[in-house]
Amino acid sequence: MMKDKRLESDSMGTIEVPAHGYWGAQTQRSIEHFAIGKDHMPKELIHAFGILKKAAAMTNYELGLMKKEMMEWIVKAADEVISGRLDDHFPLKIWQTGSGTQTNMNVNEVISNRAIEIAGGVLGSKNPIHPNDHVNQSQSSNDTFPTAMHIAAAMSVMNTLLPAIKELRDGLAEKQKQFAHIVKTGRTHLQDAVPLTLGQEFSGYVAQLDAAMENIKKTLPGLYELAIGGTAVGTGLNTHPQFAEMAAAKIAELTQLPFISAPNKFAALAAHDAFVFASGALKTLACALMKIANDIRWLGSGPRCGLGELILPANEPGSSIMPGKVNPTQSEAMTMVCVQVMGNDAAIGFADSQGNFELNVFKPVIIHNFMNSLHLLADSARMFNKYCVKDLAADERAINESVHHSLMLVTALAPRIGYDKAAQIAHKAWHDGTSLLDATLALGYLTENEFRELVRPELMIGPKS
Amino acid sequence: MMKDKRLESDSMGTIEVPAHGYWGAQTQRSIEHFAIGKDHMPKELIHAFGILKKAAAMTNYELGLMKKEMMEWIVKAADEVISGRLDDHFPLKIWQTGSGTQTNMNVNEVISNRAIEIAGGVLGSKNPIHPNDHVNQSQSSNDTFPTAMHIAAAMSVMNTLLPAIKELRDGLAEKQKQFAHIVKTGRTHLQDAVPLTLGQEFSGYVAQLDAAMENIKKTLPGLYELAIGGTAVGTGLNTHPQFAEMAAAKIAELTQLPFISAPNKFAALAAHDAFVFASGALKTLACALMKIANDIRWLGSGPRCGLGELILPANEPGSSIMPGKVNPTQSEAMTMVCVQVMGNDAAIGFADSQGNFELNVFKPVIIHNFMNSLHLLADSARMFNKYCVKDLAADERAINESVHHSLMLVTALAPRIGYDKAAQIAHKAWHDGTSLLDATLALGYLTENEFRELVRPELMIGPKS
Amino acid sequence: MMKDKRLESDSMGTIEVPAHGYWGAQTQRSIEHFAIGKDHMPKELIHAFGILKKAAAMTNYELGLMKKEMMEWIVKAADEVISGRLDDHFPLKIWQTGSGTQTNMNVNEVISNRAIEIAGGVLGSKNPIHPNDHVNQSQSSNDTFPTAMHIAAAMSVMNTLLPAIKELRDGLAEKQKQFAHIVKTGRTHLQDAVPLTLGQEFSGYVAQLDAAMENIKKTLPGLYELAIGGTAVGTGLNTHPQFAEMAAAKIAELTQLPFISAPNKFAALAAHDAFVFASGALKTLACALMKIANDIRWLGSGPRCGLGELILPANEPGSSIMPGKVNPTQSEAMTMVCVQVMGNDAAIGFADSQGNFELNVFKPVIIHNFMNSLHLLADSARMFNKYCVKDLAADERAINESVHHSLMLVTALAPRIGYDKAAQIAHKAWHDGTSLLDATLALGYLTENEFRELVRPELMIGPKS
Amino acid sequence: MMKDKRLESDSMGTIEVPAHGYWGAQTQRSIEHFAIGKDHMPKELIHAFGILKKAAAMTNYELGLMKKEMMEWIVKAADEVISGRLDDHFPLKIWQTGSGTQTNMNVNEVISNRAIEIAGGVLGSKNPIHPNDHVNQSQSSNDTFPTAMHIAAAMSVMNTLLPAIKELRDGLAEKQKQFAHIVKTGRTHLQDAVPLTLGQEFSGYVAQLDAAMENIKKTLPGLYELAIGGTAVGTGLNTHPQFAEMAAAKIAELTQLPFISAPNKFAALAAHDAFVFASGALKTLACALMKIANDIRWLGSGPRCGLGELILPANEPGSSIMPGKVNPTQSEAMTMVCVQVMGNDAAIGFADSQGNFELNVFKPVIIHNFMNSLHLLADSARMFNKYCVKDLAADERAINESVHHSLMLVTALAPRIGYDKAAQIAHKAWHDGTSLLDATLALGYLTENEFRELVRPELMIGPKS
Repeated sequence: MMKDKRLESDSMGTIEVPAHGYWGAQTQRSIEHFAIGKDHMPKELIHAFGILKKAAAMTNYELGLMKKEMMEWIVKAADEVISGRLDDHFPLKIWQTGSGTQTNMNVNEVISNRAIEIAGGVLGSKNPIHPNDHVNQSQSSNDTFPTAMHIAAAMSVMNTLLPAIKELRDGLAEKQKQFAHIVKTGRTHLQDAVPLTLGQEFSGYVAQLDAAMENIKKTLPGLYELAIGGTAVGTGLNTHPQFAEMAAAKIAELTQLPFISAPNKFAALAAHDAFVFASGALKTLACALMKIANDIRWLGSGPRCGLGELILPANEPGSSIMPGKVNPTQSEAMTMVCVQVMGNDAAIGFADSQGNFELNVFKPVIIHNFMNSLHLLADSARMFNKYCVKDLAADERAINESVHHSLMLVTALAPRIGYDKAAQIAHKAWHDGTSLLDATLALGYLTENEFRELVRPELMIGPKS
Repeated sequence: MMKDKRLESDSMGTIEVPAHGYWGAQTQRSIEHFAIGKDHMPKELIHAFGILKKAAAMTNYELGLMKKEMMEWIVKAADEVISGRLDDHFPLKIWQTGSGTQTNMNVNEVISNRAIEIAGGVLGSKNPIHPNDHVNQSQSSNDTFPTAMHIAAAMSVMNTLLPAIKELRDGLAEKQKQFAHIVKTGRTHLQDAVPLTLGQEFSGYVAQLDAAMENIKKTLPGLYELAIGGTAVGTGLNTHPQFAEMAAAKIAELTQLPFISAPNKFAALAAHDAFVFASGALKTLACALMKIANDIRWLGSGPRCGLGELILPANEPGSSIMPGKVNPTQSEAMTMVCVQVMGNDAAIGFADSQGNFELNVFKPVIIHNFMNSLHLLADSARMFNKYCVKDLAADERAINESVHHSLMLVTALAPRIGYDKAAQIAHKAWHDGTSLLDATLALGYLTENEFRELVRPELMIGPKS
Repeated sequence: MMKDKRLESDSMGTIEVPAHGYWGAQTQRSIEHFAIGKDHMPKELIHAFGILKKAAAMTNYELGLMKKEMMEWIVKAADEVISGRLDDHFPLKIWQTGSGTQTNMNVNEVISNRAIEIAGGVLGSKNPIHPNDHVNQSQSSNDTFPTAMHIAAAMSVMNTLLPAIKELRDGLAEKQKQFAHIVKTGRTHLQDAVPLTLGQEFSGYVAQLDAAMENIKKTLPGLYELAIGGTAVGTGLNTHPQFAEMAAAKIAELTQLPFISAPNKFAALAAHDAFVFASGALKTLACALMKIANDIRWLGSGPRCGLGELILPANEPGSSIMPGKVNPTQSEAMTMVCVQVMGNDAAIGFADSQGNFELNVFKPVIIHNFMNSLHLLADSARMFNKYCVKDLAADERAINESVHHSLMLVTALAPRIGYDKAAQIAHKAWHDGTSLLDATLALGYLTENEFRELVRPELMIGPKS
Repeated sequence: MMKDKRLESDSMGTIEVPAHGYWGAQTQRSIEHFAIGKDHMPKELIHAFGILKKAAAMTNYELGLMKKEMMEWIVKAADEVISGRLDDHFPLKIWQTGSGTQTNMNVNEVISNRAIEIAGGVLGSKNPIHPNDHVNQSQSSNDTFPTAMHIAAAMSVMNTLLPAIKELRDGLAEKQKQFAHIVKTGRTHLQDAVPLTLGQEFSGYVAQLDAAMENIKKTLPGLYELAIGGTAVGTGLNTHPQFAEMAAAKIAELTQLPFISAPNKFAALAAHDAFVFASGALKTLACALMKIANDIRWLGSGPRCGLGELILPANEPGSSIMPGKVNPTQSEAMTMVCVQVMGNDAAIGFADSQGNFELNVFKPVIIHNFMNSLHLLADSARMFNKYCVKDLAADERAINESVHHSLMLVTALAPRIGYDKAAQIAHKAWHDGTSLLDATLALGYLTENEFRELVRPELMIGPKS
């Protein structure tokens, strides 16, 4: 054995692990047997495991199942996991056993060894803190992994995603106010339609994000239900009757989020429907963001041969061959993110549907995709707001010129002269390449005064009694 | 012109339509220009349009914008649409204009012509009821189509889907009770695990469906928000300031569901995020059903070389070549449905993300997939309950024999002798092909009495203090 | 028993069926047990079954396993199935047993009864032609259903899809020629870029469709491999050693397509990977069509406030409220179809992945989605060509005006003065709202003559030595 | 400015970059504006860019457009990129501009600065090698990025994916031989069916992988077509007429793969349909692997209460709470990978469909998902073969016992006594819990000798004349 290795053991025998790592035999086996891809377990999941192991130890202690000293060693080590200080000791990949057992054992091993170190023991000795008998006491991978999934997801929704979306929503609301007075051509089917204000257009974006946040919040109750206490198959074998409730309460206390014990532990281990529903809400957000980012890049198209209603901030040169080109790059990053979120959502649904009997063994791929979607949405919302929305400007001259050319202003005439005559006017103006007024007069349906009274874009942006 | 044709006209000119149909020129153009696929607009959408047109006419009347007589003719014709009597007059496909304008005009034309008939006028004369000026008064396709989408979806969720799922849920709950006493081998990773009762296993299914129904209900508020009153681009141009609120209230009254006017009409026309969220809830249900249907067919596998814990009803011969074969056909239909719902969900998300400016022009494909998912789930839930769950029986003898062989009963020893020694016992028993008791005694870790006291499947199905 | 019913029987007993139908007991059971959704088995699948049953009877006869007379009765009845005359006798849904056994039996029963009728026997007597022992002789549902899937898919690709795509491809190629001389502004990132011709733009569409057709053809070899001869699990139990090859050859002869016997029958029953690959090619086509349909509607946006480079045919009134509006409705139908094809592809992949052991029991949902995608693509390609592409016109005046304003013409200067100075010119022109020439002169980088020699859009549409 | 920074500039001005990095201003701007997620550009793409830049410089030199000395400096620097030595200098994320311009500029900047260093110049001086004018000479991001995508994808398919799948395929073929003599119960619909050999079952897996590899190869021609030479919009502006062909030939020479110049550069920039088709082939592979991995874990289910036909290698402890448990972890990793590949495929299709006019700006998300799928499949195939397939053993005793109990052996009687009587026998045996022989005798359909002659599993595994 080389100097920088030490021996660790599990029920299959001994194995060399790097001396610098706290992890043990099972983690090491997983490193070797699952050299697949690049994606590691999300850090938030590891930290959530820290919270869970701490809560479990405290609960075991309070139930008289663990000595105070042992509990304190475990809590100290778990606190270091929570803080991120031990992040480098969690080398495992997503693509491992589908229960996440190897990551649960990674956590058990790291906390065990670090606790042993704190207690002055010998790494790998499992004494005085055994990874299974103590760190994992009253637990199974089958209930801890989904518990950590729920903690990680709910905390990240609350602390990372919703604030980022709120930031973008507020940025758009600011523009809504700023653009409230600008009357512009509406567009339906990409074709000229009746007018609205640019502020009204942006109000739609704000409304979409408000609804998206509301929907995401509606999925939290499912994420707040914790599997802990179900142990191996949901029965709670080898736990104290009060363990499930007390551990969930402890986690709620530590995180300041309303976690509860899942009412049915069999479903909590064998299915992760709460993630499908929550991912559906992320997808709904992605759909909204796709629409918003697309609108903004289209309205900013040009500078000379596009719609040219918005002027996008020039953050970087846009082309390696076309000098002076500026592109809607933030929209592009955002729309790529949205596409990815949809792909991730497909993976989550598929994975969740594949549970059998007492366990769903697609847990890692579910949390991987969920956290990936969540971070991509949060990060791109922040960037999009900061580097695009914030400095958006309207080209009021271009917008104003455009709105007065629109043939769809004819709609204002319909209540007076009927749909059919109004259609005749629009057709004639389009065919002759003239204005609506000219066509109206040529057809003799209204006088110029009557026309001018009815066709006023600035009065066409709302109902009228 | 043949005898069985009549002429109808629109702003593009005249066109022949079949004499027996109430539809007009625009419907006929759509039939000819969009001969694509087989899928027609869902009947529920057509009926919802009837409700909407009725509510709009009544509101126009109450606001003094329509004469009583005209309102009454429209209401009469609309009532016939609602009742389904005129279903044959709605020949249009999903694959038409993306705003559903042609279907809105189909409704306008049919109601107009039927109302004209009621009033004693001439079909196609647009007199006294004009399809645009009267049936469509204060409306646009852009606000009516999404309004009808929401009405159809919400009503179908309440009246069709939730009752069907409840039926299946109750069927499973009945089995949960019936199977409460049967202790069986748990299975995780498909491998033998610690025991639970068959009733507990079924309780997980019930819990999944309860959660699925809860989640579906959480998506209803979004569906209750109606676009009506937004007209062409969301501004409400050519409506009375009170029209939107009054029409929504009228629809709520007619349907006895809490519909309201959408707070932001720009979003209500340009995005259908509420459907993405609701479809996500349907997908969540599909994931649950996939798990349940799979479990049941696996537990019923055999009859001699499978798991053989459940006996499935034999509804039909299972094979055209293997005599006497009985297959889990209801599970198969259900799992195929679940797969389809996932595909539909992908289509809905994609479609919703593609709105531009003031309009999303993927409306028909969204409602098509949503209603398709909804009906497939409802129908298959009913069939699955009636022809599979209801007559499920447990093979108690086989189950009992199996549970006593499971090596995972060793888990009950771990709290006493520790994980490592318990693992040794299991390995030894597996290796030697003996019982856990023999292995325990051979290793000398416990006496037979101690062993028998600890390893009792019927006491391993819950926590213990 | 009512007069319009007769009794039919199978190994589960007797059951009433409608007197007017040729189907028997097993079909009737399926009608009752699987009242799910609206989608019936594709007609092409039923006709393919007719071909298969005919080929099987002829092969059995040639192998000396069936009497000539019986073969002839079966062939006659099968010919009627092939012709579509008996379409009404196939009432079964997609959502049935996942092997399609019930549809195979539906075919067996209808051919049996119709053959009995031809032979002068009594319907339901199974004499002289038994549905299992004769129509299904040497076969199982497990090999016939996938065989019929392959026949239906390959024939429809060859006879329906590829010709329709070719039609659209030729329509676009026609426009490519027609627009070859029109120099226009290129657009990348939606922003003005260097020029190209409208013909070059359309050449890209043609190239995409050419590649799409090529890719589709590459998936045909997989579809040409037939499962027939594998019987129940792939071993070919109860067949003659030459049956598989001879039956496949017979089918090839009847269809004039190069069908062969699948080299591995176990894979041919248990997996339908050929459909996943073929559906991937349909999705590739859908992606191409989505891009093309989107481009065309964007280039046709306007008429006054959009890009306005193409003038789309006005096929129908575009709005129920905005008189005179014309919309890109064919593009909208097409893009909705593309979205559906993507959803269908997701369903197919999922379904195919779910096989177990000797059988994949998601066969009906696979063929349903495949045929649905195929018809939607074929129909919409034909409509799109006929009602949109064929009458597309370019607005040459608008295009020409636009191209001369584009700041990206500056790219032509880069090889002479370098990227950095060229960028300065573009920035200055944009900032000052002037022309590139003015900015160039103001910065003193080139003389007017030098500028005019370099910046000529019509010379910027290809390489230059 | 701090000591560990230096100033770099682009057309937007100067910016500080870390002194240790070769990258320049545009890379630095991207780092700051696109702090989104964790996914970096795939290393293979960066290396492919090195190949491309080398080929472009050599081509420019051969066409007389670049001095020899400059070409050599660029080639030296490019070689370092190709070798992976400069990997740390490519810090950009997937979620940036959708054309990948920032990564093209990252490559241009790194090669420029490294070449300047080799030439003895000053970092950031752009002298003597300018990132745009020289490293990017005759190129645009719009043609280089897709060219690098194609090079990276095709090389990885050939060098990484296909060899890995071949390895697994050969491992399975080895088992096919090893298990050729083991007659076992077939299973269709999860229910007992007629027998086959375990070797036959594995032959299906081999056939699926053979077909999957064949399909993947069919997608290579599309990947071999290179966009290089199209420059900004596909016209080839600012290139020599021979550049496109020569550069492609150079790349073919450098990679020893048959790359060619894309016949239509407009399609090559604006669409990446070749990736949709290729991803479809990866998905097809994933479907096959999902089936195989599922079968293996189901056949290995037990050890005492499952199907128990295969004995899976015990690589690691399976449970943190259940001592001695061994799980099918390689199957689980594999099936999770398959699910991810399906999600990635959905993202790729969606992304490809979203091109507009002369450019698709979803390039990074496409190559990200493709390379991700490719590596996951390759890695997991290798692991699955090494740690699962290689040491698979059959439990011949259990298999043999099972096959003789199967009621479906009755199928062998059908050709003799007819389907209906055979079905009666199977029903009776099942109902009475007896053997087929007993039931046959009780019904008096055959003598014991006749029965024993017909019902011999080992003779039921193929056709019989």
